[in-house]
Amino acid sequence: MTRETPARPTIYDVARRAGVSKSLVSLVLRGAPHVSAARRQAVLAAIEDLGYRPSRAASALASQQTRSIGVLIDDFRNPWFVELLAGLRSVLDPAGYTVSVADFQLEAASGRNPVDGFLAQHADALVLAAEPDAALLGEVPVPVVVAGVRELGPATLPEADVVAGDDEHGGTLATRHLVELGHRRIGHITGRGGPAAHRRRGYERTARDAGLEPFVAGQDGGTAEADGYAATVRLLEERPLLTAILAANDVMAVGALAALRERGLSAPSDVAVVGYDNSPLAAYRYLALTSVDPHSRDIGAEAARTLLTRLEQPDAPPRPALLEPTLVIRSSSGA
Amino acid sequence: MTRETPARPTIYDVARRAGVSKSLVSLVLRGAPHVSAARRQAVLAAIEDLGYRPSRAASALASQQTRSIGVLIDDFRNPWFVELLAGLRSVLDPAGYTVSVADFQLEAASGRNPVDGFLAQHADALVLAAEPDAALLGEVPVPVVVAGVRELGPATLPEADVVAGDDEHGGTLATRHLVELGHRRIGHITGRGGPAAHRRRGYERTARDAGLEPFVAGQDGGTAEADGYAATVRLLEERPLLTAILAANDVMAVGALAALRERGLSAPSDVAVVGYDNSPLAAYRYLALTSVDPHSRDIGAEAARTLLTRLEQPDAPPRPALLEPTLVIRSSSGA
Repeated sequence: MTRETPARPTIYDVARRAGVSKSLVSLVLRGAPHVSAARRQAVLAAIEDLGYRPSRAASALASQQTRSIGVLIDDFRNPWFVELLAGLRSVLDPAGYTVSVADFQLEAASGRNPVDGFLAQHADALVLAAEPDAALLGEVPVPVVVAGVRELGPATLPEADVVAGDDEHGGTLATRHLVELGHRRIGHITGRGGPAAHRRRGYERTARDAGLEPFVAGQDGGTAEADGYAATVRLLEERPLLTAILAANDVMAVGALAALRERGLSAPSDVAVVGYDNSPLAAYRYLALTSVDPHSRDIGAEAARTLLTRLEQPDAPPRPALLEPTLVIRSSSGA
Repeated sequence: MTRETPARPTIYDVARRAGVSKSLVSLVLRGAPHVSAARRQAVLAAIEDLGYRPSRAASALASQQTRSIGVLIDDFRNPWFVELLAGLRSVLDPAGYTVSVADFQLEAASGRNPVDGFLAQHADALVLAAEPDAALLGEVPVPVVVAGVRELGPATLPEADVVAGDDEHGGTLATRHLVELGHRRIGHITGRGGPAAHRRRGYERTARDAGLEPFVAGQDGGTAEADGYAATVRLLEERPLLTAILAANDVMAVGALAALRERGLSAPSDVAVVGYDNSPLAAYRYLALTSVDPHSRDIGAEAARTLLTRLEQPDAPPRPALLEPTLVIRSSSGA
């Protein structure tokens, strides 16, 4: 003799019995307004009759700790953050945290600050992988780890932990690579922001140490593909005999490739090109960019470990960590 | 006679007075564990003495409604979601909602489901721009709008609103473009998933209508750059005389460019290449991909409007919307 176990009632069963939609049942479960007393009553009666237990809903809503971490980035179009995120999650996922991402690109200045957004969602902590204005950041009442951006720590967040790549050393590695390949006329395209400034410093110092004159374009512009294109056009106008270009990041390097092609030049046969970030873009076979790898995945993992420590020991002194970059050689530099 | 207004006390003033760190003050404000009774007392006394009011913290923590929307995507490496997100925010930002994004790429299967993450954060609603397994999705107790992915609606989320692009029509537009340019041997590289299947259907129907034999590679693979490369290698082995390739998305098209170059072929002079999504990648000057534009920004904006309506009228019948794609012609198709 077999006995059938009755299927556990679902939210759909409740909706059917109460004669309302699933959405209305969940609104009642959440205690939302906009629901008439009669329908609320019908839903509660159906829940009672069926013995429905809203498993996930209830546990989520009952929990005080959200076990969620908010990650703030500058721009979803620059894929450097993808590996950082993978590293963060390699540590935070097994620790039972969920990770979500928001950016600082406000829509026509009408948007709510994403920091406020994460606070309203009761995030346990924030990872700041961006360089927002101090005003946008404001006073943050949860632990913050700055990841991948070295500048911010002391300036706007005196108590934040900072885990970043040594961008100046990365600029040095890339420039040394080009010098060792025999290049004597190496230009640099860059843009605003802390990481770009550090990378540039490494380039300039290494070029001078090798007896070369540094030449930089784009320092007041952005760091997107179009900025890389525009900076390279200017660079080539003023220094048409360049044989190598170091870009402050990979998307700018892709812009440089287009500017070179427009002048009938190609990489690496006419001009060597090196990017920075070792983003997914650099690994695309069609682009095959030699690129400095800041080890964003390791930075993310270290930032996550720092964050977990901080949540346990809120009073420990802030801990800065600077990770060594390496150079990933692909075909764009002709090595 | 002037009178100085005393500066409003900050969390730092509280920390200094209590002799603890800012982080500890915020933990006390949040009622976190791990804080000794003595230090909690010191912090509360400092707050009292200084008349400190934790502005943002308090309002965030006091609010019941989080006014936050969680967006779920498949993979941060495929930038098609960037425009969708911009569209969502063009409507949700002014409405006072913050938007954050999580993906379904679980780290070694150890991760928490991102749906649970958003529910723990008390998201008001979810936007599903992904095709997760039904098991991953489960029963979701808040309104869900499916955006950009047509398949999911009726199958796993019977009551969800769906706002998607007409991918089959997009496949038709791209194929017709190649036919009109005189191509008679047009291959298609694709992968798993609903949007890819619709695009393929448009390609196959249009090819047959033009009296051409459809030829497809990669249908059981992924839809990343490496998959596009591998599918094109197979396509060219079996059909070396192809003159045009339609890719299921832009990153696959970039993979195709690399496979062509490896065989000494270039686009568009030897083989025309068309992508799909009109992602930021397609617009990079160096790639200049002709690409079907699903108008992801418009899809995002419409999905956001649908979501706001749903939050007001939880009981209205689900509303499907299918937006018309258009073709953006750049140099990769040689038009």
